[in-house]
Amino acid sequence: MPFIHRNTPLRKLRLPQYVGRAYNSTMTPTVTSTYASTVFPLETMTVPGGTETILRGGRHLFPLLPGAFAGVHRIGVIGWGPQGRAQAANLRDSLAGTDIRVAVGLRPGSASAAYARAHGFTEADGTLGDWLAVTAESDLVILLIADAALAAHHRELFAALKPGATIGLSHGFLLGHLRETGGEFPAGHGVIAVCPKGMGDSVRRLYLQGAEINGAGINSSFAVHADPDGHAVDRALGWSVALGSPYTFHTTLDSEYRSDIVGERAILLGAVHGIVESLYARFRLAGDDPVAAYERSCENVTGPIARTISRSGLRAVRENLDPAGRDTFDRAYTATYGPARDLVAEIHDEVADGTELRSVILAEQRLGTRPMAEIGGSPMWAAGDEVRARRAGRALGVDPFTAGVFIATMTAQIDEFAERGHPWSEIVNESVIEAVDSLLPYMHARDVAYMVDNCSRTARLGARRWGPRFQAAYEQIAFPASENPADQAVLNAFCANPAHEALAAAAKLRPSVDIAVV
Amino acid sequence: MPFIHRNTPLRKLRLPQYVGRAYNSTMTPTVTSTYASTVFPLETMTVPGGTETILRGGRHLFPLLPGAFAGVHRIGVIGWGPQGRAQAANLRDSLAGTDIRVAVGLRPGSASAAYARAHGFTEADGTLGDWLAVTAESDLVILLIADAALAAHHRELFAALKPGATIGLSHGFLLGHLRETGGEFPAGHGVIAVCPKGMGDSVRRLYLQGAEINGAGINSSFAVHADPDGHAVDRALGWSVALGSPYTFHTTLDSEYRSDIVGERAILLGAVHGIVESLYARFRLAGDDPVAAYERSCENVTGPIARTISRSGLRAVRENLDPAGRDTFDRAYTATYGPARDLVAEIHDEVADGTELRSVILAEQRLGTRPMAEIGGSPMWAAGDEVRARRAGRALGVDPFTAGVFIATMTAQIDEFAERGHPWSEIVNESVIEAVDSLLPYMHARDVAYMVDNCSRTARLGARRWGPRFQAAYEQIAFPASENPADQAVLNAFCANPAHEALAAAAKLRPSVDIAVV
Repeated sequence: MPFIHRNTPLRKLRLPQYVGRAYNSTMTPTVTSTYASTVFPLETMTVPGGTETILRGGRHLFPLLPGAFAGVHRIGVIGWGPQGRAQAANLRDSLAGTDIRVAVGLRPGSASAAYARAHGFTEADGTLGDWLAVTAESDLVILLIADAALAAHHRELFAALKPGATIGLSHGFLLGHLRETGGEFPAGHGVIAVCPKGMGDSVRRLYLQGAEINGAGINSSFAVHADPDGHAVDRALGWSVALGSPYTFHTTLDSEYRSDIVGERAILLGAVHGIVESLYARFRLAGDDPVAAYERSCENVTGPIARTISRSGLRAVRENLDPAGRDTFDRAYTATYGPARDLVAEIHDEVADGTELRSVILAEQRLGTRPMAEIGGSPMWAAGDEVRARRAGRALGVDPFTAGVFIATMTAQIDEFAERGHPWSEIVNESVIEAVDSLLPYMHARDVAYMVDNCSRTARLGARRWGPRFQAAYEQIAFPASENPADQAVLNAFCANPAHEALAAAAKLRPSVDIAVV
Repeated sequence: MPFIHRNTPLRKLRLPQYVGRAYNSTMTPTVTSTYASTVFPLETMTVPGGTETILRGGRHLFPLLPGAFAGVHRIGVIGWGPQGRAQAANLRDSLAGTDIRVAVGLRPGSASAAYARAHGFTEADGTLGDWLAVTAESDLVILLIADAALAAHHRELFAALKPGATIGLSHGFLLGHLRETGGEFPAGHGVIAVCPKGMGDSVRRLYLQGAEINGAGINSSFAVHADPDGHAVDRALGWSVALGSPYTFHTTLDSEYRSDIVGERAILLGAVHGIVESLYARFRLAGDDPVAAYERSCENVTGPIARTISRSGLRAVRENLDPAGRDTFDRAYTATYGPARDLVAEIHDEVADGTELRSVILAEQRLGTRPMAEIGGSPMWAAGDEVRARRAGRALGVDPFTAGVFIATMTAQIDEFAERGHPWSEIVNESVIEAVDSLLPYMHARDVAYMVDNCSRTARLGARRWGPRFQAAYEQIAFPASENPADQAVLNAFCANPAHEALAAAAKLRPSVDIAVV
């Protein structure tokens, strides 16, 4: 190992300057939101620096679904994971009374068959069958099997498609995989994506909760990757409306892929884990007992911080603090923003380059002999049960230090996404709304380690890979720097961040239903 | 982000079983140690499962150097980093009195020129010059510039080579880079490597310290990647002897590259950082003050643990403990081994696949606008000065928990390297000897964070990437599991590990000089 001794003064931290710094990326996705529908009434949403064309959802649009799905008589949903079962059920319920049938396709011998039958998809009425058979009979084939299964079996599924059938995806993983392995989508088939910005369970739960109020659900992006017959936009919008998406925005499969994979490694999952582990240790070292340290770290993020952001936006968390709390927030925020942004940039580079996906593929190969150990065994999680048991008796306030660290990391992701050219709806949904309205409420009901140990393998591998990087950056760089006075320039940039405007615009489209996780 | 909820019981740790488990890798380097020299007297060293052909060094071999370098009238050392200046000086001193000249080549305007002149390399006597000019005039061109410079400038340097000149490398980075970028070594030129298993500073320091005892230095591996004129082996062995290598063993550039890049990410640097950060936090949480926690973690690894391994091997650390200490060691060892081995396997996969190098290249591109922040600011390093000041007054004993964690990680690397087919000399040098005889003494004199912040960029990036992964694995998996009784099967595998035999064989070749770092 060759060492280069530089004449570096010891222990002098050199942090890069972020305010106003330009970042040159050759990989910026460019997404234009201009598109037209012959079926749905589109709206224009004002976002920083321009507008986006979006579709506001609602059950009043269900009568338009047959028109949107013109030529589609049968929709095949392949897979019965959380997205598969949620989307199959929502599509079926939304299309009830039309002649469009929704069928579920499962692998031979799938243990999910009984579960699907219990939810009304049966062989007897032709709504449950072998995945290749369902694929062969469907005009729109929505591929919702796990990433690893998709990587292993997409060629068989492609080969089974009927001529002209449309391929539907709910995230961009397959595009990344095809690129990395030199594969292609089959010619002559439309390729569309509708990507709910939340867990499958939320997609179903909110749809049911919103039955009485003209709908509720999870916002979705849509993308058209191939459109041989010119019907792709309306099919995608119809699919999204049928899922119950409060609003649907436009992206590309590429931009979706990057924001999705980066987001779950950063503020949606990986960074959250790093935040709560590092803060728990910090509070314990400062003298808190395990329950208090848990309440100031994990419970604070999943509870009052997430709730405040969901209801009132990012700035409100800071504004609600007293002056001493605000000073603590400001020091934590400005010390954290730089290191967190460096990490989001690093993740984005590795995802865009394909390096991250290569790592996932290597890990999948290793998992046969080396199963992933779970991470719920670290000391902090033992305090979770007691904390949850104490909830009824008391209202927990926002911890200003925890809030500063969390919101700085969230803002770092927002800013990095903006600099890389992601559309604003994608930015705020993938950085804020999915976190505070879908994932954090689940983490609040269970715990963060449980989420990390129980999410998709691609997400789980990514969270394990990057969570510790965030933890180390907080402990080794941000926390020591938080002893210094707040950096006013970084703070001013937060206060003036265009994301607040984008988030407020998106919030106007939110139905008045909070997800209820039991 | 699609989530898959598996019905996993919460908080039940599932650790893979390592004892006796076969690992299927398609990437095992296969290194045979059969080679012949027409100049040097080779020896056979017994290693587990066979023998290796090695060359024992010593100043008595210097008269053979002109024969080994037949046809080489001029050796150009390109670069004045720690390896460059150490190797240039050792080669020059060893070749004094022959007609082989050693010249240093530097980039135009290099700030190192004055430094080189102060060490006796001058333009006036033709031993200092422009890197391309020195390259063009040399029969053996040893490329010791930094990895990033090598990646950027190897084509110019290749183009400047005189016909038939031999290319010399001191690690396999360039091979990995050429593979990743589709480049090749130029045809018609020999390509050899001599890779000291220690820092450049140690290569020079031990050579000087060993002047009176027939030599001392750092063991080196050698590899022949291309040999158009049939002289490659003797040139490489001559180069190694002239550096002062106590013994020289055979490898391939590929195997060297993998073990080198993996080793610095694991037990040589990255894992050490993860070990001391996690243990410091653990001891602080258990009530130790900062100085005591530092002594039980960082100071313990770089001091008594490294010294004991260097003098008496790995098992001696455990055997010297009292029964209570041994139980603590055993629990720490057996809880750590599995998670550490998983990480070494993951790193080896990513290095072999090229993923790790892609990550380094991406990071290099990012560094222009985002310089690496240093990590020496975390709280533990503040205790280092006081700990070092206390050294004179007391003998610090081995902390059994720290020893268990450290030696388990070291053994995990040894076992993973053995399973992947690295030769035993490479395994013990890259996993043990380089650590305890070169790096840890430096870390003891400075500190670990200083080393991480001051090593080569490839090593530094790798340590930052993987150190936190080790830290998280210790904190979240190993430490909780260490509450359980020791796993006897894992412990028996340690006691019977063939590495002890390989290490003892290598230790017999060690000169009786400890490095003195001031």
